Amino acid sequence: MCPNNPVLTHHISSQFNDELQDVNTKFMTMGGLVEQQVANAIHALLDTDVSMAIDVQFQDNVVNQMEREIDEALTLILARRHPAAIDLRMVIAMSKANTDLERIGDEASKIGRIAQSLCEEGGSPRGYMETRHIGNQVRVMIHDALDAFARLDVDQALKVMLADADIDREYQSATRTLMTYMIEDPRHITRVINVLWVLRSLERIGDHARNISEQVIYMVKGFDVRHTSVEEIEQRVQR
Amino acid sequence: MCPNNPVLTHHISSQFNDELQDVNTKFMTMGGLVEQQVANAIHALLDTDVSMAIDVQFQDNVVNQMEREIDEALTLILARRHPAAIDLRMVIAMSKANTDLERIGDEASKIGRIAQSLCEEGGSPRGYMETRHIGNQVRVMIHDALDAFARLDVDQALKVMLADADIDREYQSATRTLMTYMIEDPRHITRVINVLWVLRSLERIGDHARNISEQVIYMVKGFDVRHTSVEEIEQRVQR
Repeated sequence: MCPNNPVLTHHISSQFNDELQDVNTKFMTMGGLVEQQVANAIHALLDTDVSMAIDVQFQDNVVNQMEREIDEALTLILARRHPAAIDLRMVIAMSKANTDLERIGDEASKIGRIAQSLCEEGGSPRGYMETRHIGNQVRVMIHDALDAFARLDVDQALKVMLADADIDREYQSATRTLMTYMIEDPRHITRVINVLWVLRSLERIGDHARNISEQVIYMVKGFDVRHTSVEEIEQRVQR
Repeated sequence: MCPNNPVLTHHISSQFNDELQDVNTKFMTMGGLVEQQVANAIHALLDTDVSMAIDVQFQDNVVNQMEREIDEALTLILARRHPAAIDLRMVIAMSKANTDLERIGDEASKIGRIAQSLCEEGGSPRGYMETRHIGNQVRVMIHDALDAFARLDVDQALKVMLADADIDREYQSATRTLMTYMIEDPRHITRVINVLWVLRSLERIGDHARNISEQVIYMVKGFDVRHTSVEEIEQRVQR
């Protein structure tokens, strides 16, 4: 399932290996699902696809269920196997990243809800260019963060962190543009505020992808790099 | 430190007990700090206190540092003590709730940043009544959730969950009121949107207090009640 992940091949107990493998597979499946949810939510909004907007909201239940199952499996591993060193870090990292994946699912569901109401209302697609652009970038970030997690790839994790800094800047700029639209044409205030919420959700998704990448570095290097600038992390990693 | 918490008195190894006690004390200290941060952020906004608004943002570093220290202590307990049953659930619950406390600190810091810019601009305090009201309620929720955590009090945890449902309704209503202000008087759009962000942060803080309460139920009863309605949780708990 994950031939490049060295954590999943070094155990003396093959049952322990199977358990870690299983939970890792489920985590990656959930990651793929959440990535697709974000893509579908943006598609629903930009292409006014109401049925897809509704579907994204329903699918959130599947993600929620997977979150519970992954945490349950991790707790069983802690209780029965007493993992140590990188195994323990992998369990802890996956538990934290699991929360982030679920929150990404929540944000996708929120975008789905807004997409549904915007589709039903119709009207001017102000801010859609910015949404498409930032939406594509955060999708790539989720993908790259999960890829870094699967392959224990610190460089890839750092790349995601750098991308998050870009997202934050673009989000600020898009917000200013939308403010200007509202002031120029107050008739569309409600609509534009909904687009602002979508952008906010996308920015939060970028943060969660960054969090997952921080867990990759914790898992591989044993450093807790939360609340640390990318430059400092790069220096620590290269030491 | 926490005489009502039965988890912290039943261990044969006094060293294990001390370690759990220490991390629990740190967790409660962080909780108190975060609760104060939220109170200060709202005070800074409503009473246009710029220096307090700046202070709230600075204090976020202290909260971040505590988050790291708590997770480090919990990882050491897992690695050395191999906790089981309610001890293990306490470690897991604290690890999850630690993330929620840190996020509450982040939201308080965001409110501090907005308060700073609104103080500096001056102008009409539209939406401040709603902010005061919802702000007071979420402060009580944080306090009650931490109290439930300290005393393993399931009923108190349920109370927090019910309060979160109220917050969500009041947030929706406040948002509609602010939209009306903007449409009626577009000159204040930027200002009112900032107040909207504050309300959004408060609503998120309520969600985090609810998450902490869910962890109390997990710790005491062993059920994972995330993504479950309060009615269903009440039924399961009473069975």
